Amino acid sequence: MTVFTEAALPGRIHVIGAGLIGTSVALAARRAGVQVSVEDVDSNHEQLAAQRWGSVSTLDTSPSAEPEIVLVATPPQAAAEVLASASSRWPDATLTDVSSVKVRPLQEAINLGADPRRLVGGHPMAGGEMSGPAAAHAHLFDDRVWVLCPTPESDPGRVTQLENLVGACGAVVLIMQPHTHDHAVALTSHVPQVMSSILAGALVNADVESLRLVGQGLRDMTRIASSNPAMWTEILEMNGTEIAPVLEYVMAEIMSLTRSLTGDEVAKVNIDRTLRLGVAGRDRIPGKHGAAEREFATVTVQVKDEPGQLADLFVAAGRLGVNLEDVRIEHVLGRPSGLIDLYVRPQLATVLMSGLTEQGFDLRS
Amino acid sequence: MTVFTEAALPGRIHVIGAGLIGTSVALAARRAGVQVSVEDVDSNHEQLAAQRWGSVSTLDTSPSAEPEIVLVATPPQAAAEVLASASSRWPDATLTDVSSVKVRPLQEAINLGADPRRLVGGHPMAGGEMSGPAAAHAHLFDDRVWVLCPTPESDPGRVTQLENLVGACGAVVLIMQPHTHDHAVALTSHVPQVMSSILAGALVNADVESLRLVGQGLRDMTRIASSNPAMWTEILEMNGTEIAPVLEYVMAEIMSLTRSLTGDEVAKVNIDRTLRLGVAGRDRIPGKHGAAEREFATVTVQVKDEPGQLADLFVAAGRLGVNLEDVRIEHVLGRPSGLIDLYVRPQLATVLMSGLTEQGFDLRS
Repeated sequence: MTVFTEAALPGRIHVIGAGLIGTSVALAARRAGVQVSVEDVDSNHEQLAAQRWGSVSTLDTSPSAEPEIVLVATPPQAAAEVLASASSRWPDATLTDVSSVKVRPLQEAINLGADPRRLVGGHPMAGGEMSGPAAAHAHLFDDRVWVLCPTPESDPGRVTQLENLVGACGAVVLIMQPHTHDHAVALTSHVPQVMSSILAGALVNADVESLRLVGQGLRDMTRIASSNPAMWTEILEMNGTEIAPVLEYVMAEIMSLTRSLTGDEVAKVNIDRTLRLGVAGRDRIPGKHGAAEREFATVTVQVKDEPGQLADLFVAAGRLGVNLEDVRIEHVLGRPSGLIDLYVRPQLATVLMSGLTEQGFDLRS
Repeated sequence: MTVFTEAALPGRIHVIGAGLIGTSVALAARRAGVQVSVEDVDSNHEQLAAQRWGSVSTLDTSPSAEPEIVLVATPPQAAAEVLASASSRWPDATLTDVSSVKVRPLQEAINLGADPRRLVGGHPMAGGEMSGPAAAHAHLFDDRVWVLCPTPESDPGRVTQLENLVGACGAVVLIMQPHTHDHAVALTSHVPQVMSSILAGALVNADVESLRLVGQGLRDMTRIASSNPAMWTEILEMNGTEIAPVLEYVMAEIMSLTRSLTGDEVAKVNIDRTLRLGVAGRDRIPGKHGAAEREFATVTVQVKDEPGQLADLFVAAGRLGVNLEDVRIEHVLGRPSGLIDLYVRPQLATVLMSGLTEQGFDLRS
């Protein structure tokens, strides 16, 4: 982790909105030695946040002096108004938010009177399917990407100040233009959410027999369909102009493929093209260490579905000096055993396989 | 595992097609004490299969006596012809295949002269993204679903004979009608493959900056996009009539949502409906032990990305007597640490969290 000198850190920040993200920023900033206050319109949220804050110190809900940074962590559709009111409440503070859409909230905040020179949008990419202050943690942003989106009028000094806060919270800063950010998350986050929800929605009327054939592929593809509908309705609506063109591309591809499946003579060529494009696109996703994911080899082991079985396997891998890049437990139907896929660097696969076999593990590949 | 008496098992089976599935069936059947022969049109495949067969015994590529079961494990579009020729080569043998589509290959085999009374379709649901005899293993079908699809004319005794073989191979038998099977896999396997490939295909022209924002959701949704295009082109084409209506449903849903995103006045209600349907559909997917997946609680732990770190964590969980239902390693961007999500039964979450905290682990939830 980059080391930040105390001088570069803000002395005092104020967080508005004590949900998962706001409370976690407060905890992370306190961990770094920053003085923090937190407020929420919901006193219940403030109480929960105070619990996370611990019994030693008391959560300050109204800052006595002007904070250097005000971080707005309300739901996205309230962010603009809260940013504008914070701008007039504290006329010298740097203003930022945490909304996962950037163009519209920033523009609306400026329209409502927020000072554009002090305003820098933010999007910490953490939290996933969790929500609420009870799930907050000082470590939530460790190793996560936190996008900062200056507007054309943002004062560069304010951007640097926020970069220091983000770094102190453990996150990796990416500076992007607001519209570049919104375009990127439409493709990498919002359209995947839509497709996952629609695919899962098709299961609502499926017969029970069909559901017995669900495998790992469909499980993986519908995991994010469990996300909070109210929050995602807001996000999708706010970024509709960036999401719609990607969905139109998807629709055109599905339509073309459907035609090929129902009798067009160039059928095979077209189906094959769709599948090959998919392989090429998948290969572009950066891996854990910047490497392409497919470069990992898989070693599959069968273990009994009992406490301690996985531990034995991981201890054995550790003893062999093999670092596991990823692990997947395959779900099986009503049997007391599990198949474990271990992902390792290809050059280590042989070592792992022979080592595990020697130690009596039941290898499947 | 159910115990099968030797009397119930076929004495001799013949496998045509020495790829991953055919060679694995051969190895699994031999493990159960069945006499097995294997042939392939590709002598290279036969040699690779013989290597998996081991040095002690020799792979028999031409059965001297008539086998009780002939299992056709060729690519799906060759299955019908091979089933028909096997039917005349061995006039008393039970005939089955392993194609992931059932209606069309069975009908074509009968049209080409295969004896419908001796024919029972099969679909062992194993193999995933692997292929080729070198990846074959006797354990490939352990705990997997293996669907058997009798035709209306199939002799019930032949079905029982195959059920015994499937059970001896370690798999769980599901009996389904061919069209029910094809309808089910269109929804649970083929449409997810199409959507994964199309979503991944949209990344082909994405700029590098956008790709830095790819998170676990998109990774999970595009994993199966890496599957073999040639094999999947065959599968999709053969089951086009079942896949097309599901894709039409998906297209209608995407179109309706796209309209809501670009200005319809009932926008929010409609977006919300799509997302809620997704939550409901996801909830219908059976869990590892028949329980719904969402019933598991998640405990997130941060570990260093080094050999032995995961082992320590799993040993600690094992000591606490907590069985891990699933594990997910979250990918992070260029930092030497990893976030591990442990999925456990909700009533065990507190035990696990307090126990791990006591042992000095860095918990995130």
